[in-house]
Amino acid sequence: MASSSTAPLPSSGRRLNMDNINPHVKAAKYAVRGELAVKSEEYRAYLQGGSTDLPFSEVISANIGNPQQLDQKPITFFRQVLSLLENPVLLEKEDVLVEHLGYKEDAIERAKKLLKVVGSVGAYSASNGVPAIRQSIADFLERRDGFPAKQSDIYLSAGASSGVNTLLHIVCQNENTGILVPIPQYPLYTASLAVLNARCVEYHLDESKNWGTDLGIIKQSYEAAKAKGIDVRAIVIINPGNPTGASLSEEDVRSVIEFARQEKLVILADEVYQTNVFIGEFVSFKKILRTLEKEQPEAGFDKVELASLHSVSKGMVGECGHRGGYFELVNFDPDVQQEIYKFVSIMLCAPVIGQCLVDLMVNPPQPGQPSYPLYKKEYDTIYNGLKERATALHKAFEQMEGVECGTPQGSMYLFPTIKLSPKAAEAARQEGRTPDEFYCMRLLEATGVCVVPGSGFGQKEGSLHFRTTFLAPGTEWVGSIVKFHKEFMDKYR
Amino acid sequence: MASSSTAPLPSSGRRLNMDNINPHVKAAKYAVRGELAVKSEEYRAYLQGGSTDLPFSEVISANIGNPQQLDQKPITFFRQVLSLLENPVLLEKEDVLVEHLGYKEDAIERAKKLLKVVGSVGAYSASNGVPAIRQSIADFLERRDGFPAKQSDIYLSAGASSGVNTLLHIVCQNENTGILVPIPQYPLYTASLAVLNARCVEYHLDESKNWGTDLGIIKQSYEAAKAKGIDVRAIVIINPGNPTGASLSEEDVRSVIEFARQEKLVILADEVYQTNVFIGEFVSFKKILRTLEKEQPEAGFDKVELASLHSVSKGMVGECGHRGGYFELVNFDPDVQQEIYKFVSIMLCAPVIGQCLVDLMVNPPQPGQPSYPLYKKEYDTIYNGLKERATALHKAFEQMEGVECGTPQGSMYLFPTIKLSPKAAEAARQEGRTPDEFYCMRLLEATGVCVVPGSGFGQKEGSLHFRTTFLAPGTEWVGSIVKFHKEFMDKYR
Repeated sequence: MASSSTAPLPSSGRRLNMDNINPHVKAAKYAVRGELAVKSEEYRAYLQGGSTDLPFSEVISANIGNPQQLDQKPITFFRQVLSLLENPVLLEKEDVLVEHLGYKEDAIERAKKLLKVVGSVGAYSASNGVPAIRQSIADFLERRDGFPAKQSDIYLSAGASSGVNTLLHIVCQNENTGILVPIPQYPLYTASLAVLNARCVEYHLDESKNWGTDLGIIKQSYEAAKAKGIDVRAIVIINPGNPTGASLSEEDVRSVIEFARQEKLVILADEVYQTNVFIGEFVSFKKILRTLEKEQPEAGFDKVELASLHSVSKGMVGECGHRGGYFELVNFDPDVQQEIYKFVSIMLCAPVIGQCLVDLMVNPPQPGQPSYPLYKKEYDTIYNGLKERATALHKAFEQMEGVECGTPQGSMYLFPTIKLSPKAAEAARQEGRTPDEFYCMRLLEATGVCVVPGSGFGQKEGSLHFRTTFLAPGTEWVGSIVKFHKEFMDKYR
Repeated sequence: MASSSTAPLPSSGRRLNMDNINPHVKAAKYAVRGELAVKSEEYRAYLQGGSTDLPFSEVISANIGNPQQLDQKPITFFRQVLSLLENPVLLEKEDVLVEHLGYKEDAIERAKKLLKVVGSVGAYSASNGVPAIRQSIADFLERRDGFPAKQSDIYLSAGASSGVNTLLHIVCQNENTGILVPIPQYPLYTASLAVLNARCVEYHLDESKNWGTDLGIIKQSYEAAKAKGIDVRAIVIINPGNPTGASLSEEDVRSVIEFARQEKLVILADEVYQTNVFIGEFVSFKKILRTLEKEQPEAGFDKVELASLHSVSKGMVGECGHRGGYFELVNFDPDVQQEIYKFVSIMLCAPVIGQCLVDLMVNPPQPGQPSYPLYKKEYDTIYNGLKERATALHKAFEQMEGVECGTPQGSMYLFPTIKLSPKAAEAARQEGRTPDEFYCMRLLEATGVCVVPGSGFGQKEGSLHFRTTFLAPGTEWVGSIVKFHKEFMDKYR
């Protein structure tokens, strides 16, 4: 990797150019915010400027799970508490808050409680987060899983992305480190591994089983990488899946943990969609790991290292812009945890108002509390709306020629297969694009709907997909996809 | 760097241990949140638990520039606007806000304006930040410097730390990349370079000139590194200085830019303390660079790449917990900027409420606006309080045996030299600490005052220092340092 002399100066006269910046940053790909997303923002700005000469009047950003950009309303209780944390002077006028502004007693009490433990939301917290908020998360995990959790094992982060960045920084020893990553995957993983110059060991999810994990395929990828001398030391699982929407069964989770035990792999469980489940029930890796430890106390499950990530960005919370999240470490070496603490210290701490939002997410209003009825109503409305829109979108895909899509199970996405003609593939080639990129670009140009080509997440050689969220309100945009698709298929028949 | 086979499994049975995690993370040091800080938090928790058997009743965290932890009140206008952004429903009751809750019209108007451009603070923004907020920053820079600024050159970040992380990720090509870093420095730089496995090329600041830059010393370090084959490609300047408090003259800034032009170095200007100046006036690198370009249009200053960083954490804003900041790129290659955009995309965006706070910082109430009188009063109170406390602390240091400290000029810190006896050095050695660590640990144990040893920032061989903020209110803690110092000196005489 080292070069023995000073790199040549660029012809532009500048010090930095494409030939001498960090090659690992250059190698990283992040399609969710790539060319299509940039172009969609240009269209949006163009329309906002009053132009009317596009074939659509609105841009639908179905490329990214960003609910509040698509008019999902924030949950009232959360925002009431946050407003009090930002302006604690309001707490001197409780009567005004209650009588004129719709605040309930429990929102006021919660704000006071949080201010007591946080001090000011304008102060840095401890590097790993406010201790009382970590305790609040530990209590939630204990309620969720039925097993104890410790606040010292919890690390608040700026969204789950920052947590993934931290964990991969620790796990990746050198360029020979390999991490098993599902394909298709959320490109945070491949992009971060590219920046770290570590090896992404791809394992394909099984589309024929609605994108479930197939242990046979995982083992095959693992063995092939090991045979090449790659030091495979961790496996990423995204459950419920992104971009696939798959929701793993308890059996699937068990088999992954058993495999991790056998092969000494760290499990990185991305569980940010844990409440976005339409079929069956979310089952956490932590719960199953602790269950296995209990069932087979001598088997060594207590040495299986698990990091589980969560976020305020998804679920019915949908507060992406607040950059709140956390991860819990299970069975990690205490000395390694010290290094994780030091690493997160360098960036000082996660946004404190985002930390408070994590506290609210894991500890929402309970039945009998004054804010509960509205909270419950808002939560259910969002949940049911997502489910309805997923179903409607799925139904539309089922009617489209050459499109196949499994039943929506969870997360915020559908990831249909599309079969395009050789003529379309040739047109794409001439434009220097993959066929799915070509399709998605034409879709954007014709309808204003921005989705992400399957190649941005990885897909089996020869197969084509795109990922779309089902967050956008209304059904008009779904109709415009159906209409575009028909015209596209006819044109390239 | 590559190892050809799988790393051995740890004896603990876990996959990750101190011998096989990322060695570059292990190599990073970050003393600001190190052992002393951890111990001070333990004392704080102990005191909060009601214990009374320590020789102090309060922990003073003078180790970190965290104003609101030390009871600095946030600026009312900022927090009023943020509370409305968090709970926009409040805007439906303007009369209540004004008549009962102290909001002025301009705070309400600003919140409406920001909501219009942001949408919801719970939505992801563009990766480089909300366009209108970038424009607001560009307008501020134009007013500040008298030269144009473009919104497309501005990148919102989660505090300045995250901006530094981004920039170093791009600049560092491989393990042969060298970055000139001032010593003493804020350890973010050395820690980030350690993680990136790039070379920190240290240049010492001149304590005899109140920690100014000495171009002769910079050149010497640069030439020595070049002679070793290191590809030195950037220089970090922290102005006003951290930990030194030094404030550079226009002449100093000019000479650094001239040197960067000659040697083709990227300038990374950490200007987060730009309003914390007590002597003279802050002069920005951007202003002087553009001035030089104008004065000598043929000299090639238009090829000098500058990245300037700013933050809401410091100044009179002091909103560390909100993790808001930005950097401006000047004269960068557009293709390189695209790579920076992609890199920040991987973490999605900076916290949106923090972005809004940046907007408020660069565009505060103006004379004649309803919120101005209170804003001005609060701002001046904070500024004068900092200056007074800096002066009082400096006066105390002047009276302490073996302590020398330059006149406070800026930032939030003093960085006195301490001369300790051979007996103290020997006692430190027996404890496995450097003498300054030993001194700071004893200070914490005796007084509850937490400062950072000079070794955490770098210091000349044989010299000893510590860094303390002058943020803590009152003078009692200053007295306790004086008393401790006398006893320490007597004990190890």
